[in-house]
Amino acid sequence: MGRLTGGDPSLLRRINSAVVLHALRGAESPTLTDLTRITGLSRPTVEGVVDGLMEAGLVVESAPEEGEARRQGRPARRFRFRAEAGHLLGIEIGPHRVAALLSGLDGRIFGAGSREVPEAASADERLERVRMTVADVLRRAGVARSSLRAVGVGSPGIVEADGTVRLGTALPEWTGLPLGERLRRSFRCPVLVENDANAAAVAEHWKGAAVDSDDVVFVMAGLSPGAGSLIGGRLHRGFGGAAGEIGALHLLGRDVTPEKLLSTTGEPLHPLDEQAVADVFALARQGDERAQAAVERFLQRLVHDVAALVLALDPELVVVGGWAAGIDGVLEPLRRELARYCLRPPRVVLSMLGEAVVATGALRLALDHVEEELFAVEGTVTARR
Amino acid sequence: MGRLTGGDPSLLRRINSAVVLHALRGAESPTLTDLTRITGLSRPTVEGVVDGLMEAGLVVESAPEEGEARRQGRPARRFRFRAEAGHLLGIEIGPHRVAALLSGLDGRIFGAGSREVPEAASADERLERVRMTVADVLRRAGVARSSLRAVGVGSPGIVEADGTVRLGTALPEWTGLPLGERLRRSFRCPVLVENDANAAAVAEHWKGAAVDSDDVVFVMAGLSPGAGSLIGGRLHRGFGGAAGEIGALHLLGRDVTPEKLLSTTGEPLHPLDEQAVADVFALARQGDERAQAAVERFLQRLVHDVAALVLALDPELVVVGGWAAGIDGVLEPLRRELARYCLRPPRVVLSMLGEAVVATGALRLALDHVEEELFAVEGTVTARR
Repeated sequence: MGRLTGGDPSLLRRINSAVVLHALRGAESPTLTDLTRITGLSRPTVEGVVDGLMEAGLVVESAPEEGEARRQGRPARRFRFRAEAGHLLGIEIGPHRVAALLSGLDGRIFGAGSREVPEAASADERLERVRMTVADVLRRAGVARSSLRAVGVGSPGIVEADGTVRLGTALPEWTGLPLGERLRRSFRCPVLVENDANAAAVAEHWKGAAVDSDDVVFVMAGLSPGAGSLIGGRLHRGFGGAAGEIGALHLLGRDVTPEKLLSTTGEPLHPLDEQAVADVFALARQGDERAQAAVERFLQRLVHDVAALVLALDPELVVVGGWAAGIDGVLEPLRRELARYCLRPPRVVLSMLGEAVVATGALRLALDHVEEELFAVEGTVTARR
Repeated sequence: MGRLTGGDPSLLRRINSAVVLHALRGAESPTLTDLTRITGLSRPTVEGVVDGLMEAGLVVESAPEEGEARRQGRPARRFRFRAEAGHLLGIEIGPHRVAALLSGLDGRIFGAGSREVPEAASADERLERVRMTVADVLRRAGVARSSLRAVGVGSPGIVEADGTVRLGTALPEWTGLPLGERLRRSFRCPVLVENDANAAAVAEHWKGAAVDSDDVVFVMAGLSPGAGSLIGGRLHRGFGGAAGEIGALHLLGRDVTPEKLLSTTGEPLHPLDEQAVADVFALARQGDERAQAAVERFLQRLVHDVAALVLALDPELVVVGGWAAGIDGVLEPLRRELARYCLRPPRVVLSMLGEAVVATGALRLALDHVEEELFAVEGTVTARR
């Protein structure tokens, strides 16, 4: 339910600005007369909006068309949107590596870089790697830091609206870290911090396994699964940014922890020790019964958690990523058991973007932010009751 | 992310129409000059839109103000929105009763009626009671059936977009019933069929326990809980209308069914036999150990299911309704255990609308439908990528 809050003049200016900018992107170097016709706005309104957009550097007068120059009198001024008016970064800060992607305002990626980080690195060390990676990427692409319009960041944990990590057990010193504030010291543009599974869901929808679906759950499958959801094409963060943290059903409950679940020795595995987990799966494939039982317990837990997400949200599509997605035999049991548990089983596919998924989603979030400022009317014109 | 799909003339007409109608609702009998000033639209555009709205019966010329009549020349025409231009119905079709609420286009309820229905009634019998109840309500209020603009219906089950019940085990002959199509024979206006828990969530948000929250899970607590969710103030139906059917995690899975869970004899209870359930709770209060163990199992299951919903969705507020909400001691264990399981525990409160909740929500959905047609630009102006 959306309604126009009619009568607010600044709101109407924003709507008019978005309408004109959209018409400018859609038309081939339109004149003011073209824009008046396309938008239905009055000529003075269009003139005022175009002046404002030129002042903001987003619109520029384009050269007159050839035929026009020959006609009598001054040719009508023509305008175009400046896609090169700014740049965007998408950054992943993960347990084992940091990565950055660089694009123009159209989202086309033309720079990338990454660095390994020790699992046990302090928050300061980890952020220093981020700064080094970003500096490399900008330098190699010949892009000035001052031309950045927005930076998106994807990282494990529950992230507050201001970019503070409310809870993040996967990385040392992460819980309570004012990640957005820390990163904003390096950038003069908005920095948007997002949970890694949320960013991954956005990425798969943008250019991965979910381009054809607006109702998607991305499962970051690991020892304790997390998830990011798109509902009607929008990221669903939840009221406190904690949506999708389904692993907590067992982590904080009475059940056995995932680290014990997949152990063959009774001793819990380290939650980030992917090699130890891979060893258990390898043993299971070789016929080791304790390992097979451990893998079975792990898969049952994963199926249960994904089923709970699917029943709560009813997505069209489940995309499975994270390291467990690379383990043989995760997809088939998931499909089979979801068909049993769910009233309307979703399609289940593997992530297509591999290790670039989180940085790609972070970049898309930066692009969304900029486009929202430029083109969106939703959220400003709509208000519920 | 919303964008204007600039350049579509019929879309711009709709936007302009919504803007003018909103200004008409907000202002006191405005003139065309007032409307031009308020909306920023050109005078010919405003005139065209107002003519169209008058033709549709939604706007009427109001009497000139007193002072104006005395001035020289013809006074400027003034206009107002006709709130009395139509009526709405909200209908509940439940296991034990059917109910109907009647309102004007402003949503103010001025007619109500209900009838008991035997649990075992056939679909035809149940729909006949609905027709009788509606006829009573309309007759008593003196409202012609032809003035109905939309009818909302809430009923158990997974409901498809066209109003067909995809799966509905609570009512006899409900699965596969083309409920929307059957009811459309009785009405010439749109009939919107919705899952009962979804309708209840909408109702609590409109005028119940959730008026101050846009991120709400309504739990219809019974032997097998279902849920309806609002995200950002909108109903979240899921891709196939099955969102919130969390009870299926156990119903279709390997766990013991809820009917056995709450049994003290080993024999399963009938899923709709609320008296038998109440007896178990009464026994537990009297100290019967088997009954206490059964109640404990029931509460654990409910907590687990609600925790799964909360972790998946991260709502601000959980509203508990349905018959189990009336049972002593449901709220406290829910609050306590959610605080253990959930990273960001939501507030947990009881439903405020009692047995009117589903019909109230159905009425609000009918009102939403009509308002969306009249005022919404969202969903038409916005399109993702």
